[in-house]
Amino acid sequence: MFTKLKRLLIGRPLKSNESSGQKLSKFKALAVLSSDALSSVAYGPEQILIVLMAAGSTALWFSLPIGLAVLILLVALVLSYQQIIHAYPQGGGAYVVAKENLGTNFGLTAGGALLVDYILTVAVSVSAGGDAITSAFPALRAHSVAVAVIIVVIITILNLRGLTDSATLLSYPVYFFVLMMLLVIGGGIFAMMTGQSAPIHESAPIGTPVMGMSLFLLLRAFSSGCSALTGVEAISNAIPSFKEPAPKNAARTLLMMGGILAVLLLGIVGLAYLYGVHPSADQTVLSQLASHLFGRSILYYIIQASTALILILAANTGYSAFPLLAFNLAKDKYMPRPFKVKGDRLGYSNGIITLGALSILLLIIFKGRTESLIPLYAVGVFIPFSLSQTGMIVHWMKRRPSGWIGKLVINLIGALICYMILVIFFLTKFPQIWPVLIFVPIVVFMFHKIHEHYVLVAEQLRVDTRQPVPVIHASDNIIVVPVAGITKVVEQSLTYARSLSDNVIAVFVGDSPEAIQKMDDAWNAWNPGVRLVTIHSPYRSIVNPLDKFISTVKYKAEKRGATVTVVFPQFYTKKWWQSLLHNQSGVLIKASLIRHKDIVIATVPFHFKK
Amino acid sequence: MFTKLKRLLIGRPLKSNESSGQKLSKFKALAVLSSDALSSVAYGPEQILIVLMAAGSTALWFSLPIGLAVLILLVALVLSYQQIIHAYPQGGGAYVVAKENLGTNFGLTAGGALLVDYILTVAVSVSAGGDAITSAFPALRAHSVAVAVIIVVIITILNLRGLTDSATLLSYPVYFFVLMMLLVIGGGIFAMMTGQSAPIHESAPIGTPVMGMSLFLLLRAFSSGCSALTGVEAISNAIPSFKEPAPKNAARTLLMMGGILAVLLLGIVGLAYLYGVHPSADQTVLSQLASHLFGRSILYYIIQASTALILILAANTGYSAFPLLAFNLAKDKYMPRPFKVKGDRLGYSNGIITLGALSILLLIIFKGRTESLIPLYAVGVFIPFSLSQTGMIVHWMKRRPSGWIGKLVINLIGALICYMILVIFFLTKFPQIWPVLIFVPIVVFMFHKIHEHYVLVAEQLRVDTRQPVPVIHASDNIIVVPVAGITKVVEQSLTYARSLSDNVIAVFVGDSPEAIQKMDDAWNAWNPGVRLVTIHSPYRSIVNPLDKFISTVKYKAEKRGATVTVVFPQFYTKKWWQSLLHNQSGVLIKASLIRHKDIVIATVPFHFKK
Repeated sequence: MFTKLKRLLIGRPLKSNESSGQKLSKFKALAVLSSDALSSVAYGPEQILIVLMAAGSTALWFSLPIGLAVLILLVALVLSYQQIIHAYPQGGGAYVVAKENLGTNFGLTAGGALLVDYILTVAVSVSAGGDAITSAFPALRAHSVAVAVIIVVIITILNLRGLTDSATLLSYPVYFFVLMMLLVIGGGIFAMMTGQSAPIHESAPIGTPVMGMSLFLLLRAFSSGCSALTGVEAISNAIPSFKEPAPKNAARTLLMMGGILAVLLLGIVGLAYLYGVHPSADQTVLSQLASHLFGRSILYYIIQASTALILILAANTGYSAFPLLAFNLAKDKYMPRPFKVKGDRLGYSNGIITLGALSILLLIIFKGRTESLIPLYAVGVFIPFSLSQTGMIVHWMKRRPSGWIGKLVINLIGALICYMILVIFFLTKFPQIWPVLIFVPIVVFMFHKIHEHYVLVAEQLRVDTRQPVPVIHASDNIIVVPVAGITKVVEQSLTYARSLSDNVIAVFVGDSPEAIQKMDDAWNAWNPGVRLVTIHSPYRSIVNPLDKFISTVKYKAEKRGATVTVVFPQFYTKKWWQSLLHNQSGVLIKASLIRHKDIVIATVPFHFKK
Repeated sequence: MFTKLKRLLIGRPLKSNESSGQKLSKFKALAVLSSDALSSVAYGPEQILIVLMAAGSTALWFSLPIGLAVLILLVALVLSYQQIIHAYPQGGGAYVVAKENLGTNFGLTAGGALLVDYILTVAVSVSAGGDAITSAFPALRAHSVAVAVIIVVIITILNLRGLTDSATLLSYPVYFFVLMMLLVIGGGIFAMMTGQSAPIHESAPIGTPVMGMSLFLLLRAFSSGCSALTGVEAISNAIPSFKEPAPKNAARTLLMMGGILAVLLLGIVGLAYLYGVHPSADQTVLSQLASHLFGRSILYYIIQASTALILILAANTGYSAFPLLAFNLAKDKYMPRPFKVKGDRLGYSNGIITLGALSILLLIIFKGRTESLIPLYAVGVFIPFSLSQTGMIVHWMKRRPSGWIGKLVINLIGALICYMILVIFFLTKFPQIWPVLIFVPIVVFMFHKIHEHYVLVAEQLRVDTRQPVPVIHASDNIIVVPVAGITKVVEQSLTYARSLSDNVIAVFVGDSPEAIQKMDDAWNAWNPGVRLVTIHSPYRSIVNPLDKFISTVKYKAEKRGATVTVVFPQFYTKKWWQSLLHNQSGVLIKASLIRHKDIVIATVPFHFKK
């Protein structure tokens, strides 16, 4: 039943050597890995406007210089990451770059921040996608959390099916969104120039002095705008997913993505200024622009749908990045081993499922509110940004290949910008982002504890293969069979025990002398060829006396290096409910014995036929 | 940790032969077994008034004749049960009496109805106790369900401690309640006679004709009043708990209880008429009487507290009766075997815990509303009443001891009254009580299915002790050791396997030819003296190829009557969280193998020291 459902949702299992067929072309990679960055235009410009609005609508013209500053930042980041891609063709995530150049702790900090951030990617994108939907259909606003959770579940299932399947499926909407945004920008400029459309509000001219405008507000607006840059690092983490030559393809894809993002960002910021859009709680800036230009026509709904869709796909970026990073951390023994296991469809199923579950948790905790999630998301992104740029500086200074000074300068500028932005974040948004200062250290601490454990385990499991394997003589082994009466099950257990050793003891625990006498008599009458030991348990407990008896046996056996095996029957009934009718005390006794003693438990199944 | 908490809550374990010390004296028995019946005066009279109020306040005088009718019914029931006690000194519950005289199905119907009813006893009493509390403290009304649930949990713990401990603790409040009720009744009559107190409302004189009074309403009021009779059967079910001579002591206790109940019932009904109390949703009738007579003084709060307390203790009656009945049903193989097990404190712990859990469920479903629970409760009581009376008629007709005709007549009258009341119930309250017609048949069906299963199991487990126990030759046994690498754990498993049989096979499942080659080479270098079989699994699954391999081995072994044992290591880490870091695939593989095949699983523990 479960297997069938799994097949239906996930698809047939793939062989390990089908793996190379799963590599991404540039065209598909742009769709899968850039949706996070590109979709940022749906909320990035809006975040700038929301902050500026605090100083009144005349302050909105500041969005233009701020937009330009963000663009400069984008260029710096793209250039820096281009260099990382070529320097780390095996996948130059912040974790790898920081670990190799700055040491383990910086690497783990970057890794931990990124893991948390990928979860936020999913949560932010899905909730912003929900905003696009509720802008068009206000009636759905009451159920926004439920809608978001359902979307996460669907994306999780698609990812469990495997990367390429979903890439094919998901690439069209990304390009369609770019087309729709170009249509809005182009249409908006054309309508304004031909005078077919008037602004929503009159915009203050560029340079208008604004009362109450402070540097603090300006920096705050700038740091909000930086949320439009989230997702730029995705490509450099996923180089191994590209078709060969992977680094070259990845670098080109990054450049393409940077170009598209720059055009869209500038276009939307500019258009919002031209049309004097004011940010609103009920409707996104994009929705205001589209409905103003095209009315509530079918075209408007298509634009909203494509916005919602790309945001949902942006969440998908997390699903490419999180499992890969978890795999890398698990390979280095900083994450639990199950994250290394490839699932039936060659994806890292455990990483995918973990990401889905944690982002649902975040959505529920933050009640699906995009504006509360974004500051955390943005600061989380700039921590690994900064660390990987810093790592690259060290990288160039150590290696010094030809032209290293130019490269060093690029990464130095990138690093300085990132640090500056981090400082701005903590100065202007501390009340929203302090949890990062708690969670990242906790995650890093966890990494260390896990690592420590795995190292200790490996030490304890190491075998000296030059030594011969020790041998125990069969006649030394003792086999204990607890019995509760004379039944087929007991007979079967005794037969099994006698086939393993000549040293078999049956044990009966009775709660009254009469019960013990009765058992003794029945045993002698039956005479199964095994010695019966009886124990009186005045407190009716079976576990404790059995435990004591086995300890005594174990003590004797240990002296001659032999093992003690306890044989337990386990019942299997025909129907599931029937198993409720059998005392499960056997299970408890087994659990208690094996947990606390060094004895072997042999479970003999008894399948009821009727 | 768990053990310490258990000791603190439940007390030290008691030896089986400490059992007789737990018998009840008449004085304590009256407290433990009669609180259900006596506490009925807290809601019985009120239920009559609520129904009559539908015809206006002039109809309230009808409560006097209805109260008398209920009293007659009480006398009939007490007399009938006196006879049952003497005829069934081993505990004459409706289940036993109906089963012996009317056959299994009637017995099971009575038993099923009673089990459901004991759950309702707890739910009704606790929620009525809550009403008494909220009459005094209206602020608590919003949390009534939570309060009720906490009370159930406390009673459950007290009962897990054992019967006598709680009897000592609980007997004072019962007698205190009787005292308080006598004080209210006596004080009320005295105040009225001396003219110190005026009625709350003027009562219509007895015999006043009432517009809209119908026979239906009258019968409905009467059947509501019958809820005051619930709990009368408790004593006859619990005869084995009495001190010797148990039947005589039980019969006397029943008589005492009947007398007290009659006085209180008549007193409260009469007083409510004298003072013209109208039933109200905010305050119970008892609370109205007490606050009218004594004001909101300390005495008033003491009266309310003692009412709440006895209702809570009434719930305790269910805790004496339910586990005992469940034990009797389990002894006859109609209930799961765990209900036969005595706990550390000699109570039937499983019955006690089940009752607590189910009554909490009922309280939550019915949101703690007493008035919704009472009709179900009352009708559930009268089904076993009727069946046991009918059973007694058959009993006397079969045995015909001296004076049997007189006894027959008493039980005949009892039975006729009970049937009449059942008819009245179904005529006047069908919308509230139909669930009984569904639940009782379901419970009886369950009894039969359980019985059928246990009979089949006993058949399959029966051993012919005259036949010798079969012997398998050790050399025929095959031991399979799945290995994932060369570690201390594998070494330990191999050593163990070789001590049991010469026929040991190690199996390795690899997902690539390279992995298999590597393992083969390492194995040959190590040379542990055991043959290694390697399996290539292109789909990375370990369970399926292992499953197939073991099936093949099993097939060969079966032909010569030998067993197959699969040796699995199980890791035990030092700290609980570390166990999360180890692949639990072994557990899944074990579960799958043992569930579906006839092979033995030997679990070898490996305890990490660090």
